[in-house]
Amino acid sequence: MPKKGLKIATIGGGSSYTPELIEGFIKRYDELPVKDLYLVDIEEGKEKLDIVGNLAKRMIKNAGVNINVHLTLDRREAIKDADFVTTQFRVGLLDARIRDEKIPLKYDVIGQETTGPGGFAKAQRTIPVILDICKDIEELAPDAWLINFTNPSGIITETVLKHTKVKAIGLCNVPIGMVYGAAEIMGVDVNRVSIDFAGLNHLVWGTHVYLDGEDVTDKLIYSLGIGKSMSMKNVADIPWEPEFISSLGMYPCPYHRYYYLTDQMLEEIKKDAQTLGTRGEQVKKIEEELFKLYKDLDLNVKPPQLEKRGGAHYSDAACSLINSIYNDKKDIRVVNVKNNGTILDLPDDVVIETNAVIDKAGAHPLSIGHVPTKIRGLMQVVKAYEELTIEAGVNGNYDAALQALTVNPLVPSAMIAKKILDDIIEQNKYYLPQY
Amino acid sequence: MPKKGLKIATIGGGSSYTPELIEGFIKRYDELPVKDLYLVDIEEGKEKLDIVGNLAKRMIKNAGVNINVHLTLDRREAIKDADFVTTQFRVGLLDARIRDEKIPLKYDVIGQETTGPGGFAKAQRTIPVILDICKDIEELAPDAWLINFTNPSGIITETVLKHTKVKAIGLCNVPIGMVYGAAEIMGVDVNRVSIDFAGLNHLVWGTHVYLDGEDVTDKLIYSLGIGKSMSMKNVADIPWEPEFISSLGMYPCPYHRYYYLTDQMLEEIKKDAQTLGTRGEQVKKIEEELFKLYKDLDLNVKPPQLEKRGGAHYSDAACSLINSIYNDKKDIRVVNVKNNGTILDLPDDVVIETNAVIDKAGAHPLSIGHVPTKIRGLMQVVKAYEELTIEAGVNGNYDAALQALTVNPLVPSAMIAKKILDDIIEQNKYYLPQY
Amino acid sequence: MPKKGLKIATIGGGSSYTPELIEGFIKRYDELPVKDLYLVDIEEGKEKLDIVGNLAKRMIKNAGVNINVHLTLDRREAIKDADFVTTQFRVGLLDARIRDEKIPLKYDVIGQETTGPGGFAKAQRTIPVILDICKDIEELAPDAWLINFTNPSGIITETVLKHTKVKAIGLCNVPIGMVYGAAEIMGVDVNRVSIDFAGLNHLVWGTHVYLDGEDVTDKLIYSLGIGKSMSMKNVADIPWEPEFISSLGMYPCPYHRYYYLTDQMLEEIKKDAQTLGTRGEQVKKIEEELFKLYKDLDLNVKPPQLEKRGGAHYSDAACSLINSIYNDKKDIRVVNVKNNGTILDLPDDVVIETNAVIDKAGAHPLSIGHVPTKIRGLMQVVKAYEELTIEAGVNGNYDAALQALTVNPLVPSAMIAKKILDDIIEQNKYYLPQY
Amino acid sequence: MPKKGLKIATIGGGSSYTPELIEGFIKRYDELPVKDLYLVDIEEGKEKLDIVGNLAKRMIKNAGVNINVHLTLDRREAIKDADFVTTQFRVGLLDARIRDEKIPLKYDVIGQETTGPGGFAKAQRTIPVILDICKDIEELAPDAWLINFTNPSGIITETVLKHTKVKAIGLCNVPIGMVYGAAEIMGVDVNRVSIDFAGLNHLVWGTHVYLDGEDVTDKLIYSLGIGKSMSMKNVADIPWEPEFISSLGMYPCPYHRYYYLTDQMLEEIKKDAQTLGTRGEQVKKIEEELFKLYKDLDLNVKPPQLEKRGGAHYSDAACSLINSIYNDKKDIRVVNVKNNGTILDLPDDVVIETNAVIDKAGAHPLSIGHVPTKIRGLMQVVKAYEELTIEAGVNGNYDAALQALTVNPLVPSAMIAKKILDDIIEQNKYYLPQY
Repeated sequence: MPKKGLKIATIGGGSSYTPELIEGFIKRYDELPVKDLYLVDIEEGKEKLDIVGNLAKRMIKNAGVNINVHLTLDRREAIKDADFVTTQFRVGLLDARIRDEKIPLKYDVIGQETTGPGGFAKAQRTIPVILDICKDIEELAPDAWLINFTNPSGIITETVLKHTKVKAIGLCNVPIGMVYGAAEIMGVDVNRVSIDFAGLNHLVWGTHVYLDGEDVTDKLIYSLGIGKSMSMKNVADIPWEPEFISSLGMYPCPYHRYYYLTDQMLEEIKKDAQTLGTRGEQVKKIEEELFKLYKDLDLNVKPPQLEKRGGAHYSDAACSLINSIYNDKKDIRVVNVKNNGTILDLPDDVVIETNAVIDKAGAHPLSIGHVPTKIRGLMQVVKAYEELTIEAGVNGNYDAALQALTVNPLVPSAMIAKKILDDIIEQNKYYLPQY
Repeated sequence: MPKKGLKIATIGGGSSYTPELIEGFIKRYDELPVKDLYLVDIEEGKEKLDIVGNLAKRMIKNAGVNINVHLTLDRREAIKDADFVTTQFRVGLLDARIRDEKIPLKYDVIGQETTGPGGFAKAQRTIPVILDICKDIEELAPDAWLINFTNPSGIITETVLKHTKVKAIGLCNVPIGMVYGAAEIMGVDVNRVSIDFAGLNHLVWGTHVYLDGEDVTDKLIYSLGIGKSMSMKNVADIPWEPEFISSLGMYPCPYHRYYYLTDQMLEEIKKDAQTLGTRGEQVKKIEEELFKLYKDLDLNVKPPQLEKRGGAHYSDAACSLINSIYNDKKDIRVVNVKNNGTILDLPDDVVIETNAVIDKAGAHPLSIGHVPTKIRGLMQVVKAYEELTIEAGVNGNYDAALQALTVNPLVPSAMIAKKILDDIIEQNKYYLPQY
Repeated sequence: MPKKGLKIATIGGGSSYTPELIEGFIKRYDELPVKDLYLVDIEEGKEKLDIVGNLAKRMIKNAGVNINVHLTLDRREAIKDADFVTTQFRVGLLDARIRDEKIPLKYDVIGQETTGPGGFAKAQRTIPVILDICKDIEELAPDAWLINFTNPSGIITETVLKHTKVKAIGLCNVPIGMVYGAAEIMGVDVNRVSIDFAGLNHLVWGTHVYLDGEDVTDKLIYSLGIGKSMSMKNVADIPWEPEFISSLGMYPCPYHRYYYLTDQMLEEIKKDAQTLGTRGEQVKKIEEELFKLYKDLDLNVKPPQLEKRGGAHYSDAACSLINSIYNDKKDIRVVNVKNNGTILDLPDDVVIETNAVIDKAGAHPLSIGHVPTKIRGLMQVVKAYEELTIEAGVNGNYDAALQALTVNPLVPSAMIAKKILDDIIEQNKYYLPQY
Repeated sequence: MPKKGLKIATIGGGSSYTPELIEGFIKRYDELPVKDLYLVDIEEGKEKLDIVGNLAKRMIKNAGVNINVHLTLDRREAIKDADFVTTQFRVGLLDARIRDEKIPLKYDVIGQETTGPGGFAKAQRTIPVILDICKDIEELAPDAWLINFTNPSGIITETVLKHTKVKAIGLCNVPIGMVYGAAEIMGVDVNRVSIDFAGLNHLVWGTHVYLDGEDVTDKLIYSLGIGKSMSMKNVADIPWEPEFISSLGMYPCPYHRYYYLTDQMLEEIKKDAQTLGTRGEQVKKIEEELFKLYKDLDLNVKPPQLEKRGGAHYSDAACSLINSIYNDKKDIRVVNVKNNGTILDLPDDVVIETNAVIDKAGAHPLSIGHVPTKIRGLMQVVKAYEELTIEAGVNGNYDAALQALTVNPLVPSAMIAKKILDDIIEQNKYYLPQY
C-alpha cells in the first residue's frame, strides 16, 4: 500500500448515498488518510453529482480533514492509480428500477429491485457496464481493490471475479443490519453480538447468533417467532410464523420473506403499487426531497433524512472494509467473495456472502463445510439462477436467460418466465447491447 | 446365487399390476428360472390378492412354465430365504391417494401422487412400513435384493439405503417410457435408441439421446418443440413451448411439467378434479373394472385393458433388472441407486436415477461429473426436499416436515406448507405412528 | 461413423509390435472393416518401417482380407480424415530408453522405462511430439479418436486431454494381462473372470475380482500370498509377502512391486544391469532378432517370438477398443480416461485407469467414489508426480520438474532428484526443446 | 464460560515442560483468572510430579497470583468440572521413546519420535490412553475443551475427534516457531510477521509469509536458499538446497527435512546415535539435569536451561489459545482442527494444521481450497498414513498397521515395514492392549 496518500474513486458518485460514504471517511480519517476522493458520474447524472459533490466538500471542510474531493465525468482519470474503486451506480437510474418492478407485477410475480425478475433485469443492464469499468481498472489501476456495492451485489461481484482480473469484494448492508437488528431485539449493545453468516447476497442466513460469545440463536429465534422483527426500509415487515421460524432454527435475512412468504409479499407489493407506488417510485420522491436538502449551502453534515432511503450502515460496511484492508486489521467482516470450497455445497468459482478475515491481502472466508439440508436446497437453486443470469448477461445468451428466470423460485413457470423475459428485453433495449 | 430354483417375494402382491410381473417372468423363464413366487398382501387386501393371484396361476399354467405361485398374508414366510423381494404396495390404498391429491388442491397447490405434497404424504405413510419390511429382510434373507417399485420410488429407496443394511435398487417405468417415447417420436425401432439419464426419480432428464450411437438430442428436442410429445397415462400431456425446450436442450421427463409448467398443470388438475375426478378417483374405477376382468376364470393372459392403468413397461423394467442381476449380464439399465459421487453436485449418500451397469454385484452407475447449471438448481432443491422428507418420515420430525414442504418448488410459501402439512398429519393419523 | 471404409493411422508404425496390431485387425475384419491402414514413421525409422510394413502386407494377403497398408513418412497424409489414430512411437528409440534406465542407477535409484525417473525422462521427450501430432489431428481429422499406447500412457493421455481438443483414450496391456493372470492362477477360462480396476496407469489395483460374477478376491489374494504369481515380461517376478498381500486385500499390478518392494526390485535391476544388461539393452537384442525374422519373405503370420517382447494382449486391448467404439458395443474395457469425479480422491481433470463402458461416444467410466485409505495415499502422491511431470513437459518448467522427481516415491530425496534431473536434461538435450 | 474461577487439568503434569505452562498462566493472569490448576500424573511419575509441582507452587507464590496448584494421581478428580484439560503425557516415558528411535535404525530407517515408524509406535501407545481420558471428560466435564499437546499431536487430535464427543484442539509449537524463525531471518520484530499455514502437524508449509501485511515469501525463500536457517532443537539443521527451496516456493517446516532430505537426515541421525546417543537419550540427560535444578528450593522462576529441551513457545501456544477461547478473542492462531472442507484435497473428517479464528465457540479455520500440486501429494500420502495409524491404534488392526507403515514415505518397502512393525509390537506389548 503506497505511503503517498490514498486515492479513492467512487463510480456513481452522484448517488444520494454519497454523504454516508463521506461521513465514513471523515470518522476514520486518523487511521485511513484519504488524500483524493474522485466522485465520478455520467453526463445524465452531472447535476446530481454537482449537488452531492458540493455537499461532500462542505462536510469535509466542516470536519476539518484534508481530503480533496474531485467531481468528474472522466472515469479513466478517476481510476488511474486509485487504491480503491467503489461502485454505487445505477444503470438507467430510478426509471429503470420502476420498470423492473412493474413488469413482473403484470404477471402476478413479485417485482423487486434485486431478487426475482427485477434483479435479473438490473443485472443484465449492469453487467456490460461493470465489465467496462473493470477493463479500465485492469489497465489503469491493476492493484486497486474494487469494492462493489452495486446491486445485485453478489451477481455483479461474481461477474467481475469470473470474467476479469480485478481484485473485487462485494458488499451489502443487509448482514450488518441483521447484527444491529439482533442487538435491538435482544436489547443489548451491538458490539456484544456476533453472527455466523452463510449464504448468498440477499439470501444470507445467520446460522448462529452469539452474545458475548455464547450461542443465543434459540433465544433470538423465539423472539422472532413472537413478533419481534428486524426488517429494512426496502422490505415489507411481515412477521414470521412461530412454528416455521422455529423449524428453520436460523436467523433469516429480511429478503428471505420473498422466498418463504411469497404469497403475502406479493399481496403487499401489489397493494403498495396501487397506493404508494412501487418502492422505486417512493424512492424517487425521497431522492427528490434529499437533493433539495443537499442543495442547501448551510448543510454541512449528513442529513438524518437520508436514513429513510434504506442504506443504513452503508458507511460502516464500506469504509470499515477499506480501513481493514488498508491497515491489515485481520478483523472479521461479512463480504461477498469467491466460494473456493468455503461452502462445500456450491461450486468453487461462485460468490457467496459470508464471514471473512480482512487484511491487506484481501478477504479470507472462514471455512463452513456443508450447510444444513434445510437451507441447502434454496441456496443452491438461487445460485444456479445467479450463474445463468451472469452467463446471460455476459454473452447476451437468450437460452441462459430463459433458464435463469425459469429456475428462479419467484417465477411460477417457464411460460411466465418467457413473457417476463421478452418484456424485459423489449423495455431495456437501449441498455442491453449484449443481446 | 443359489443353484436351487429362484425364490421371489412380491410385497403388495394383490396389486392390479401383478399380471404385468407374471407376464415378465413367463417371457424370461428360460433364462430366469423362478421356482417360487410369493404374492404377499395384508388382511385388507386379501380379496384382491385372491383374485389377481388366481389369475396369475392361470397365466402360468397356460404358459406351461414351472413357477409355483403362493398367495399369503404371512410376509415373513414369503421373505425367508428369498433371492429377490419386490415391493409394489400402497399404504392406505387408493383412498389415501385420493386424500393426497385433494388436500393440496384446497390451497390451490398441485395435488399429485408422487411429486409435491401428495408424494410427501405418501412417503410419510410408506416409510414406517418399508423399514419394517427391511427388518424382516435383514433377519430372514440378508442376501436378498430388494427391488423397490413403491412410490415415491427414489425417496423410498434412499430411506432403505440410509437406514437399513438391505441391498436395494429402486425402479421406475418413466425412463424406459422415455426411451419408447423417443423411438416413437423419431419413428424408429426402440432398440436403436439409447439415452443418458441423469437426475432424480420423476425428475430425470435425458441429457443425451442417441440413435444407433449417434447423438440426435437436438433433433428430438426440435420434435418436442413442434408438438410431438411423450407423456404417460398419469401426467397431462401439455405441449412444450418451442423456445423453452430448445433453451433447455435436454429431454425432460413427463413429470417435469409439474415444475416447468406449474400454472398450466394446476389448472388441468383442477379441471379434471371437478369433472373426471382426481387421477386417484379415475384409477379407482379402472381398478374396479380390472378386477372384474381378473375374476373371469377364462382369462389366462394379461388383459390389454391393464395398459390404461399407467404401468406400461413395469414388467420390462423389473423383470429385466432381476434377470440382469441373476445372469450377471453387465448391461445398462436406468435405476435408482446411491449417488456415491456419480453426480458431483449432490451429496454422496443420496439416491439418484441414472444409467448403471447391472451385474451379480448390483448396479454400478456410470460416472456423470457435474451436471449443466440449467438443470442443477432444480435437481438440488428437489433433492433437499427429499432428504428432509426422509428425515421427517423416519423420525416423525415435524420441523423437518415443515421445511421439506416449504422448500418444495410446488408449494408457494411457508404458510401454505404449514396448512397442508397439518391437514396431511390430521388425515393420515392412523398411518403415521412416527409422529 | 462414416459408411466409407475405415481409415486408421498408426504413428510409430515401424514398431516391432505392429504385427500384433495387424493380427488384431485381421481377426476382427468382419465386424471392423478397416479399408486403409497408414503405418507412419520418421526418417530414422524408415528401414524398420519397410521391414515390418512388408510383413504386414504379407499377413494381410495371407489372411485374404481387403485392407490397404500404406507405408509413409508423411504424418499429415496419414492423419488426414482418419477415423482412428493410434500411437506407439518411442522418441529417441531404444538408446534413449537405455539412458533412462542407467541414469537413476548411478544414484542407486530404480531405473525403469515408465515408473520413476525413467518414466519422467520418457514423458519429457514424448510430450512435445504428442502435442505436435495432436495439432495435426485438430486440423486434419478433428473427429478422429486418438488411441494412445505410447508410454507413460496415463501421463501422455492426460497431456492430450489437458492441452488439446483431441478425443483421446489411453491404453495399456497391464489390466488385461491381470485378467489373464488371475484366470491362470485360478485355473479357469479367462472369460469367466472380471475385475474392478481403480488407479493410475502402471499403478492400478484390482479392487474386486469376480469369477462368474461371484467375488473371489480373497481366494486370489490367498493364492498370490502362497507364491502364485502374475507378472509381465518387463517386471521382475518377486513373490508377494503373504501377510502384506493379505493386509492389502487387493490385487496389485506387477508394477506395484516398484513401490511396495522397492529395495528388492532395485537389487534385481542392479544385478540384471550387470549381467544381462538393462531391460532396454535386452529388448534391443530381442528386437534385432525380431526384425531378422520379419525380413523373411516366407513369414506371413505374427511370429510367436514376438511374445517375449512384452506386449502380450496389445492387439486385444487396442483392436477391441476400436471395435467397441466403431460398433457402439457398450461393453466394459479398462482404459485411461479423464477422471471427472469417478475417483473422488483425485482432481477432476486428471487421467485415471479404470473400467469404462465403451460406445460410439467414447469411454464412460463406472463411478467409484472414494477408494480405500490403504491405496489412496500412494495413488494421490503418484498422481501429483504425474501432474507436475506434465506441467514440466509442456512448459519446460524446471521447478515443476524438480518437484515432480522429489515427490516421486522411488526417489529418496530432493538432492538425488536434482542430480538425476540435471543428468536427464543434459543427456536428452536434443529431445527437450521445451527446456 | 463460568463466572466461577477457571479450573484447568493438566494430564502429564509431571512433565519437565510444566514450568513453561505455569509461566504462561502467570503472565496472562489478569485476563485469564485460573483459580485451580490440577497437575495429574500416574504412579510411575509421582516423584517428578512432586518436584515440578512444588516448583510450580513456588513460581506462583513468587509471582503473587492467586492460582491453587493441586498435585494428584486421581485423574477423575482433576477432570471433574474442568474448563480446560491439557495433555502433555508420554506413555512409556523416555525409555519408550528411545526404543522408538532405535527400532527403525536397525533397518536403516529414520528413527524419530513423531514422524515415520517412531511416531507410529508412539501413536499406538498413546491412543488407548487418550481414549480413556476422553471417556472421563465425556462423563465428568462434557463442556471442557481438550487442548492436546501430546505427540503425534495431529494424529492424537484426529483420534479424539473421530472417536469421542470431546471438544478438542491440537497444538504444536512448530508453527509459532516458524514465525519466530522467519522474523529472525528477516531481522524484524516477530509481531510484524504473519504466515498462511497449510498442512498437517509436523508437515506444515508456510504457503505465504507476510511482513506488515505485504507478501515477502520470495524474499524469505531466497534467504533460506543462501543458508539462513530456521530449525528446532529436535531437528538437525541441514541447509536447504537453493534451487530446491526456490522450486518449492514455500516455507517448509523443520520436520520437512525428514521427507525432502531423507538420506542426509538418516546419516545425521545414525551419526548422532553412535556419538551423542539418540535424541531421546540426549533428552533423558537434559531432563535429569532439569529435575536436579527444579529441586532447588530457591528456584522460583522458569529456568533458562529449559529452552534446550525443545519446547520453546509451548507456553505461548497453549496459554494464548486458552486465553483466546476464554475471552472470545477472535484472533488467529495455528491449530490442529477438523478439516471439514478447509483443504479440499483431504477428507472432511481428518485433522489438519492451519490458521483459525479462535473464539468461545472454538477454532474456525480459514478456508484454503485446493493446495498447490507440489505440496498436495506429500500431504495426501502422509494423511493416508495417519488415518491408517489411527485405525490400527483404535482397533489393534494389524492389517491397517502394516499398510500404514508401508505407505509412510520414510519406510522404503513393505518388507521393512513388516519387520519394523513386528519389532514395535514385540517391544511395546505392555502398552498395546488393543493388539
